[in-house]
Amino acid sequence: MKIVIINGPNLNLLGVREKSIYGQISFDEYFLTLKSQFSNHELQYFQTNVEGEIINLLQKFGFDGCKIILNAGGYTHTSVAIKDAISAIESEVIEVHISNIYAREEFRQKSLIAPACKASVCGFGLQSYELAVRGLIAGSDS
Amino acid sequence: MKIVIINGPNLNLLGVREKSIYGQISFDEYFLTLKSQFSNHELQYFQTNVEGEIINLLQKFGFDGCKIILNAGGYTHTSVAIKDAISAIESEVIEVHISNIYAREEFRQKSLIAPACKASVCGFGLQSYELAVRGLIAGSDS
Amino acid sequence: MKIVIINGPNLNLLGVREKSIYGQISFDEYFLTLKSQFSNHELQYFQTNVEGEIINLLQKFGFDGCKIILNAGGYTHTSVAIKDAISAIESEVIEVHISNIYAREEFRQKSLIAPACKASVCGFGLQSYELAVRGLIAGSDS
Amino acid sequence: MKIVIINGPNLNLLGVREKSIYGQISFDEYFLTLKSQFSNHELQYFQTNVEGEIINLLQKFGFDGCKIILNAGGYTHTSVAIKDAISAIESEVIEVHISNIYAREEFRQKSLIAPACKASVCGFGLQSYELAVRGLIAGSDS
Amino acid sequence: MKIVIINGPNLNLLGVREKSIYGQISFDEYFLTLKSQFSNHELQYFQTNVEGEIINLLQKFGFDGCKIILNAGGYTHTSVAIKDAISAIESEVIEVHISNIYAREEFRQKSLIAPACKASVCGFGLQSYELAVRGLIAGSDS
Amino acid sequence: MKIVIINGPNLNLLGVREKSIYGQISFDEYFLTLKSQFSNHELQYFQTNVEGEIINLLQKFGFDGCKIILNAGGYTHTSVAIKDAISAIESEVIEVHISNIYAREEFRQKSLIAPACKASVCGFGLQSYELAVRGLIAGSDS
Amino acid sequence: MKIVIINGPNLNLLGVREKSIYGQISFDEYFLTLKSQFSNHELQYFQTNVEGEIINLLQKFGFDGCKIILNAGGYTHTSVAIKDAISAIESEVIEVHISNIYAREEFRQKSLIAPACKASVCGFGLQSYELAVRGLIAGSDS
Amino acid sequence: MKIVIINGPNLNLLGVREKSIYGQISFDEYFLTLKSQFSNHELQYFQTNVEGEIINLLQKFGFDGCKIILNAGGYTHTSVAIKDAISAIESEVIEVHISNIYAREEFRQKSLIAPACKASVCGFGLQSYELAVRGLIAGSDS
Amino acid sequence: MKIVIINGPNLNLLGVREKSIYGQISFDEYFLTLKSQFSNHELQYFQTNVEGEIINLLQKFGFDGCKIILNAGGYTHTSVAIKDAISAIESEVIEVHISNIYAREEFRQKSLIAPACKASVCGFGLQSYELAVRGLIAGSDS
Amino acid sequence: MKIVIINGPNLNLLGVREKSIYGQISFDEYFLTLKSQFSNHELQYFQTNVEGEIINLLQKFGFDGCKIILNAGGYTHTSVAIKDAISAIESEVIEVHISNIYAREEFRQKSLIAPACKASVCGFGLQSYELAVRGLIAGSDS
Amino acid sequence: MKIVIINGPNLNLLGVREKSIYGQISFDEYFLTLKSQFSNHELQYFQTNVEGEIINLLQKFGFDGCKIILNAGGYTHTSVAIKDAISAIESEVIEVHISNIYAREEFRQKSLIAPACKASVCGFGLQSYELAVRGLIAGSDS
Amino acid sequence: MKIVIINGPNLNLLGVREKSIYGQISFDEYFLTLKSQFSNHELQYFQTNVEGEIINLLQKFGFDGCKIILNAGGYTHTSVAIKDAISAIESEVIEVHISNIYAREEFRQKSLIAPACKASVCGFGLQSYELAVRGLIAGSDS
Repeated sequence: MKIVIINGPNLNLLGVREKSIYGQISFDEYFLTLKSQFSNHELQYFQTNVEGEIINLLQKFGFDGCKIILNAGGYTHTSVAIKDAISAIESEVIEVHISNIYAREEFRQKSLIAPACKASVCGFGLQSYELAVRGLIAGSDS
Repeated sequence: MKIVIINGPNLNLLGVREKSIYGQISFDEYFLTLKSQFSNHELQYFQTNVEGEIINLLQKFGFDGCKIILNAGGYTHTSVAIKDAISAIESEVIEVHISNIYAREEFRQKSLIAPACKASVCGFGLQSYELAVRGLIAGSDS
Repeated sequence: MKIVIINGPNLNLLGVREKSIYGQISFDEYFLTLKSQFSNHELQYFQTNVEGEIINLLQKFGFDGCKIILNAGGYTHTSVAIKDAISAIESEVIEVHISNIYAREEFRQKSLIAPACKASVCGFGLQSYELAVRGLIAGSDS
Repeated sequence: MKIVIINGPNLNLLGVREKSIYGQISFDEYFLTLKSQFSNHELQYFQTNVEGEIINLLQKFGFDGCKIILNAGGYTHTSVAIKDAISAIESEVIEVHISNIYAREEFRQKSLIAPACKASVCGFGLQSYELAVRGLIAGSDS
Repeated sequence: MKIVIINGPNLNLLGVREKSIYGQISFDEYFLTLKSQFSNHELQYFQTNVEGEIINLLQKFGFDGCKIILNAGGYTHTSVAIKDAISAIESEVIEVHISNIYAREEFRQKSLIAPACKASVCGFGLQSYELAVRGLIAGSDS
Repeated sequence: MKIVIINGPNLNLLGVREKSIYGQISFDEYFLTLKSQFSNHELQYFQTNVEGEIINLLQKFGFDGCKIILNAGGYTHTSVAIKDAISAIESEVIEVHISNIYAREEFRQKSLIAPACKASVCGFGLQSYELAVRGLIAGSDS
Repeated sequence: MKIVIINGPNLNLLGVREKSIYGQISFDEYFLTLKSQFSNHELQYFQTNVEGEIINLLQKFGFDGCKIILNAGGYTHTSVAIKDAISAIESEVIEVHISNIYAREEFRQKSLIAPACKASVCGFGLQSYELAVRGLIAGSDS
Repeated sequence: MKIVIINGPNLNLLGVREKSIYGQISFDEYFLTLKSQFSNHELQYFQTNVEGEIINLLQKFGFDGCKIILNAGGYTHTSVAIKDAISAIESEVIEVHISNIYAREEFRQKSLIAPACKASVCGFGLQSYELAVRGLIAGSDS
Repeated sequence: MKIVIINGPNLNLLGVREKSIYGQISFDEYFLTLKSQFSNHELQYFQTNVEGEIINLLQKFGFDGCKIILNAGGYTHTSVAIKDAISAIESEVIEVHISNIYAREEFRQKSLIAPACKASVCGFGLQSYELAVRGLIAGSDS
Repeated sequence: MKIVIINGPNLNLLGVREKSIYGQISFDEYFLTLKSQFSNHELQYFQTNVEGEIINLLQKFGFDGCKIILNAGGYTHTSVAIKDAISAIESEVIEVHISNIYAREEFRQKSLIAPACKASVCGFGLQSYELAVRGLIAGSDS
Repeated sequence: MKIVIINGPNLNLLGVREKSIYGQISFDEYFLTLKSQFSNHELQYFQTNVEGEIINLLQKFGFDGCKIILNAGGYTHTSVAIKDAISAIESEVIEVHISNIYAREEFRQKSLIAPACKASVCGFGLQSYELAVRGLIAGSDS
Repeated sequence: MKIVIINGPNLNLLGVREKSIYGQISFDEYFLTLKSQFSNHELQYFQTNVEGEIINLLQKFGFDGCKIILNAGGYTHTSVAIKDAISAIESEVIEVHISNIYAREEFRQKSLIAPACKASVCGFGLQSYELAVRGLIAGSDS
């Protein structure tokens, strides 16, 4: 299975700068572990701070037989355009968040993109990505 | 690890009656599979339609070294009392839903109990429970 | 036809205590009259103050070829779980209220369970139940 | 007993045009059946698409010893003026709807006129009118 | 005077488990002190996590010449059914909360049951119960 | 203990004018009784219709070792400035109301100052003040 | 000066029927008194229950050098079309209500047409019309 | 093609009175031009200030093979009854406005009837009607 | 008759300063004219910028056989305390505004004090006061 | 006349991929037809998924004597920045949508950019663009 | 230039009492520094807890050729009357806050008086006043 | 001190085009003046219309010992992603606006990014930037 992870704004800061705050490992490091856990699948990873670039990525991989894991960061709560992109493409999209967004500020408890996604995992830290991958694999097994 | 699954209202109907509608397997059957997948852990499962009984169960297992997986069904959106119980107990609670509640009717897109839970998995069908178990195990490994 | 009447919280007080306030006849007495009016049909009657017990009753009779008349009392305005139970069962459910709830306080003018019910009768006093029974019978005639 | 049925906007389309959509019988035909069911009562029927004409009709029959059955159609949700007319007249008014309005779009779940009506029947199709008549007759018997 | 204290969900945890968090004394212990403070009155105490059981208790003691002190816990903010029970019974009901609910989260600043209660005491810790008892006694003196 | 009672707008009318409406005793008279009930404590009492004067009084006594009982009357629902004063001073402030404000009009069910107060007593009539005093004394005993 | 009074829905009931409720004098009788009070001015009076007829009247007299007094009854709170008519015509329009609408139900406290009117008088009973006439006359004097 | 234009309240004032304000040409004059532009189609035009008459017109032409262009004026924002009529008829309805309603006051930015219309043109002045006609013709060509 | 006019914040600026803006005559000058128009009645006039002083004035004259005309200025929209004072006193209070507040910004279209007043006049400029006086005199005549 | 069409997010998918879903023709193909229909005018066309690029395009052509047709896709409902750009430039902007956005989900019924546009066409499918072009040409003729 | 600083409720507590909390310097001390920084300008400073006194001060200095710096404290969020005073006077008013009010509780993020002020500085601590003075001076230079 | 100014959408239009509208000086020109005013500090300036580029810039300079002045233009009111970036970086960020946004349309009175900024200056025109620089310098002096 081909799985593409798309990370939105500010997720490039994880573990790269200020490790005492953002944790010791960067997403790049985590991604290596993740790839090794699922070595018989093809995983790719992209990050961008630009809303329209997320749409470009969704369109690029969305007609490709891929499955997509999307952490849209702050755009989760404001982007009708990303939601429309998810609805427009063919690939299944899983929504992922590192923290439990439904336990945070009021404005973060509403995901505009959720209605277009198949499923959602949040609050498990970086492990949320692993669970999303497992969900995609198991989903295609059954 | 000792893991307790608590299912709320109407989840007893899964696969028991009207299988053409609710799917072929009951939660009891699914639970057997789940237990076999995690045979070196102790899994227990309870279901009740009564809001207060969910609180009783949370209190019974919440000071016990257990980890808890909760699908509160329709009470998810209305129960301050269950939220308070989750906050009051010691155990980690993972919120689980079979469907992606954030993609359904407006009133289902607000989980009152989410702010008291550690994490949330929804939309993967019955597999959501498996992912929650994996999340709990991996979480305690790290 | 088999018809089950389920009464929710506080409806046990009708005509039992404080008759000057709640009227001279209890629901038990009224139920006798009702049964005699429809003697060629099978009528049953249950009352409970517990939300989850209403769900238990709906599930018990909802796959049984019964038709159900439900006065959910105060749970009418707050229970997603009862609404889900009505949607999940096979039987037709008619919503009944003794008073015209849409003429009362703002918070009573919203019935959470109405969208799952087939029809609604309210404001005719105890006679609302009789009209609901007639509606069910005529409905199955046509 | 003298009973007047007032139908509001678009209810003249029932069974007259496009019978495949609106059902096979017009309200005129249904009204004949209804009159035969209650042959010892005097029933009259009016329809208008004009909000102010509904008020004219309510005023004309509202001081007359009549009882009134009102299906205000789309004006149900928007007309303070009809509500005021119902409150101003002497006759009892029963609100009737063919569909279960409380199960439809959000804006249809609020009846502006309900607080001025004695009771409400909805969701039984054309039979809703018959139940309303029965409710009026029984109500005046007791 | 006969006074009944009804405690709702999660109040059984006070001082029983995790005393470092919930305080050193359980409600049972506190209740002994309270009874000794008012030894010429008859005090009873009940706790339940089930909403419908609170209604059962209100109905049981509400026609009995008792006065009632109610801490409905999380149901305070969500239960129309408990509110209806308070309105339906004869006994005066005093609303009590250990914390100052009006100083907490937005959703806790609205008490659905307050409009049916005679008075309210909150924020004095366990002492809130003592003040409620004094209020009931003094109220019946005057 | 030194306790200062501050009464806000319109509370000077109690029992002074129109006794048939406002009750037979003025707050001055009630205050004499209150002082005699707590003769080993020092009680003072002030009333003003001016919002800013309430702030002046809170500031004057709030750094003085006093405890304060505040009935802010109509300013309860509108004054951010009084709330800020309560938060700024050192003394504990207890919110008191003669009627049960949470049982009155919608706009009275929100107390802007509650979040800054330690506790709240309302609905016991003038006796609310006595209970507040007892609460303050007992609170400082423990 | 030429002054036209337009009365909307249900105002024809004043003093005509049920005088014990609506007062002893009809608007026709009151109008005679009013005309005699302002005998050197030309007063005309119209009533209709139909929203569109109010617009017809406003258009008919609104380009005529008249001044208009409008009591739009229940349409006050719902009619954008009447508001647009008032804005479109040349004549000054004074809004009049017999009761103090701003002291009634929430939905009556919003006048949709007020922003298009020059001034408003309400709550003086039938005398509100006299004050509106005086206002128009004095206004044109200055 | 047979096309019927229905204009709602106050649109009869265009260019008839106060030409300096409403423009130099009346809708009648504009309609002549419009007809000449589309001389091989049959165009008809109606105007009324009465909501119910708009419904009458929609019903009259809506089962006739016509296409309909509707400028409902102020009723656009308030009429559920007109919306229901549009949904009930067979003909395609195009919503037209002379001004850009979505650029005006908040209450004009919500069209109640839009969800029942096929398409919408607004803001082009009288030319909006021409574009709507073109849209209907082109639409039936394809 | 004794009539007291109370003007709230900023009304002292009328015609005193910046006459090109606030008009040529001050309220003092206008008041002289007003007194001469009603020379057989006793008129008094007060102005204050302090909310609590308005309450003091209402209390001072409210038990005195006076009738009161109140222009509460900006406090109209925010003062529960003034509303409570109006409700507490015996005198009739008429609400007056120079401009048509219901035609201004949204927040000015809600008068908190209206529900406690007998009637309201607004939008006639300074003449609003004269109409209010006439209303009071005529009201006490009938 | 020089006319620039700017298409926002996801409109590049039209007819390019998954033609069974998005229709048989791409916007590029449609644009050729459009250009041939208006061969004596200069038409240009741009598409981007990036909100800021839309602003760049608006600024580039907005001081150029062009007229602009904008379909902002999902940014229509969320972008204050695009609205500001439209207001800042000199060119007339026409808002276009393929579907009738006012007939879709609640959040799509609010166009943030509409108040800055001259006019709007929606719901005619791709033909909406043609109508917008006609509107621009006719507008500049008159 | 003559500059008047008006401080509203609770700002007299700065640095006077409880210096560990409110900072080491009082506003009086800070004001000395401020005056020395702008020695060629005339600075005055006033503080009051009374809303109406703030209006008195604004009126006193507002027609005087002064420029005004206003920190209205808690009245910022509730006072229509102060807003009206700012609009009524001639002087420019700058809004100042010590903390960043837009980063605090929801109810503090709305300044009622902002729309009447020329500019706003907040969040720089006491230095906010200095920046406001600089802004006034530079503004009058240009 | 190193200070970076980031300007968001449409701020590139200032004084460049249409000088009669946007003022005579461009931000580039203004920036030269600003640099000369603070010649012993290092100032840099960037502008972009792309939301994600603002985030890129915040991240680039936010771990650099810089202080940042941000005018996010229209994104101020809609961007959770920019807010998250401000919270994630180390540098202090000052919010700046040329106009007083809190005095403009409702939707501009809410700054989503304010809660993450240290302070805010708005309404002083271009001079707002100078005051922000002074605030940063003085802040680091103390």
